[in-house]
Amino acid sequence: MGAENFMKEIEKLNELVFNYAGLNIKRFFNLDSKVYEEGVLSKKIKELMGLVASMVLRCDDCISYHLIRCHEEKVSDRELEEAVSIALMVGGSITIPHIRKAFRFWSELKEE
Amino acid sequence: MGAENFMKEIEKLNELVFNYAGLNIKRFFNLDSKVYEEGVLSKKIKELMGLVASMVLRCDDCISYHLIRCHEEKVSDRELEEAVSIALMVGGSITIPHIRKAFRFWSELKEE
Amino acid sequence: MGAENFMKEIEKLNELVFNYAGLNIKRFFNLDSKVYEEGVLSKKIKELMGLVASMVLRCDDCISYHLIRCHEEKVSDRELEEAVSIALMVGGSITIPHIRKAFRFWSELKEE
Amino acid sequence: MGAENFMKEIEKLNELVFNYAGLNIKRFFNLDSKVYEEGVLSKKIKELMGLVASMVLRCDDCISYHLIRCHEEKVSDRELEEAVSIALMVGGSITIPHIRKAFRFWSELKEE
Amino acid sequence: MGAENFMKEIEKLNELVFNYAGLNIKRFFNLDSKVYEEGVLSKKIKELMGLVASMVLRCDDCISYHLIRCHEEKVSDRELEEAVSIALMVGGSITIPHIRKAFRFWSELKEE
Amino acid sequence: MGAENFMKEIEKLNELVFNYAGLNIKRFFNLDSKVYEEGVLSKKIKELMGLVASMVLRCDDCISYHLIRCHEEKVSDRELEEAVSIALMVGGSITIPHIRKAFRFWSELKEE
Repeated sequence: MGAENFMKEIEKLNELVFNYAGLNIKRFFNLDSKVYEEGVLSKKIKELMGLVASMVLRCDDCISYHLIRCHEEKVSDRELEEAVSIALMVGGSITIPHIRKAFRFWSELKEE
Repeated sequence: MGAENFMKEIEKLNELVFNYAGLNIKRFFNLDSKVYEEGVLSKKIKELMGLVASMVLRCDDCISYHLIRCHEEKVSDRELEEAVSIALMVGGSITIPHIRKAFRFWSELKEE
Repeated sequence: MGAENFMKEIEKLNELVFNYAGLNIKRFFNLDSKVYEEGVLSKKIKELMGLVASMVLRCDDCISYHLIRCHEEKVSDRELEEAVSIALMVGGSITIPHIRKAFRFWSELKEE
Repeated sequence: MGAENFMKEIEKLNELVFNYAGLNIKRFFNLDSKVYEEGVLSKKIKELMGLVASMVLRCDDCISYHLIRCHEEKVSDRELEEAVSIALMVGGSITIPHIRKAFRFWSELKEE
Repeated sequence: MGAENFMKEIEKLNELVFNYAGLNIKRFFNLDSKVYEEGVLSKKIKELMGLVASMVLRCDDCISYHLIRCHEEKVSDRELEEAVSIALMVGGSITIPHIRKAFRFWSELKEE
Repeated sequence: MGAENFMKEIEKLNELVFNYAGLNIKRFFNLDSKVYEEGVLSKKIKELMGLVASMVLRCDDCISYHLIRCHEEKVSDRELEEAVSIALMVGGSITIPHIRKAFRFWSELKEE
């Protein structure tokens, strides 16, 4: 699915989560957004870090989310490629199927 | 897919596995059901433990299976939420996509 | 090392972490303790869940920590054994070295 | 999807990856094919090892790929079953959903 | 520690485990030894598979155990090297510290 | 152990690995160093990415290595803290024991 549908789906599911979530889960989600805020490291670099972490842990949805954010932060193709190289090297060939999908999603993001 | 289709699919695939399975795989499957039987810990608590384990290891099918069993064992929304909080905390934000799907599946289970 | 030394070491290292930690890391540590508080699920059950999660993710220090808490919450040998069975089944033989150390630590805890 | 479509999809996505890939990613992909070449261990055994590794790490696409290669190398049902037993034992019940899909894919491969 | 001390330590800890273990844990341990028995795949190949699985899952004790068994089954240096290459490729650079220790343990095994 | 002893140990073990390594393992090690070279992303940022990846995958030796490189690349305490926050958030509380050791190692690095 495209980036827009992906984000709509996430928002719909987040609403569902918040119907069940108590204070701890809500705080966790809130904290999750805070660590990517501008600091001594830029938002762009932090999103690339989130991407590398998601790739070595092999979570497609997490990868897609960080790719959307990377695109918003004007990450270039070459910056993306260098970050992916690190993820591939650290995580091994088991990450390849996720990296394939990542570049497809990235291509779609650039066309939108 | 709904819970009923999910269980049918699993049963169909299990049959296929058993066409190939030798004694060791069969014993493993058998043993797998035994650890969730009533003991000094209740079946309900054991299913919640299986759920937490499946969430931190991030296996959607395993999560769905344990949610079905949790539903049968009359786990309440709040009990589920507290177990999920632990999984989220231990496993980190990488578990979030699985937790989203878990609450959606849980909502479907309750409607059936 | 025994349980007492283990906790002293952790406290010393936590102090060190807090020398570096900004607000987000501090909030995370704070939230981490909250999810194990008494709720509709008891503290005992929650610690056993934390233990199962730590076993399938194979973190010795996390296992030791939850064993100390389980001991404080009066978990019995048989309750522990049933929780460990689930972790072993879900996580596979790769968890065995951690389970060996867990029972050794548990034995030490009971002797103290 | 069947084996043929699976391989076509992979080839299409690999092309996309190579549009972005610099020298390091290309070298990684090249090296990835080399470790499965005939050596003192046969190609058949190496593909079975790749399969076991993919199962314990729970990557469906990697499993499908190694099953295709195992089929080409004339792995028998019983050889497959013994390799799967090891993966199941080491990796635990969390691998079961992947093992179910693996046997389904294997059945399809044999029918083609 | 050398291979002999390693095995003594394991046996001592296994005894401790069996003091606590109920039927399910005992069955699991029993089943764990069965999957490595001679079949259509040789014991040697199965131990190498167990080794590859242990390397990509990064469990030092499991690696040491399978290295001892590989040594008993007369695995050659080159066979070991080819199996390790696959584990390194699949599992990525994160396996390197474990591979370093594996070759050190292997060297010790050969000297004994 | 301090950073100097850590690097000496690694070099000694790498020599041992290279006694056994064929061309593929050698190429892998070579490629592993290349992905951290200066590019459109700086060496500093790449080492921080390697650190985040090592933290979420929970490999103490890999963390220590990247901390040494981060120290050489003049990573500040606050940059480190922000990268660690991301790793902690993505990877969850299971990363905490590794983060504790990371800050201890970092403190030792700064004192040397």
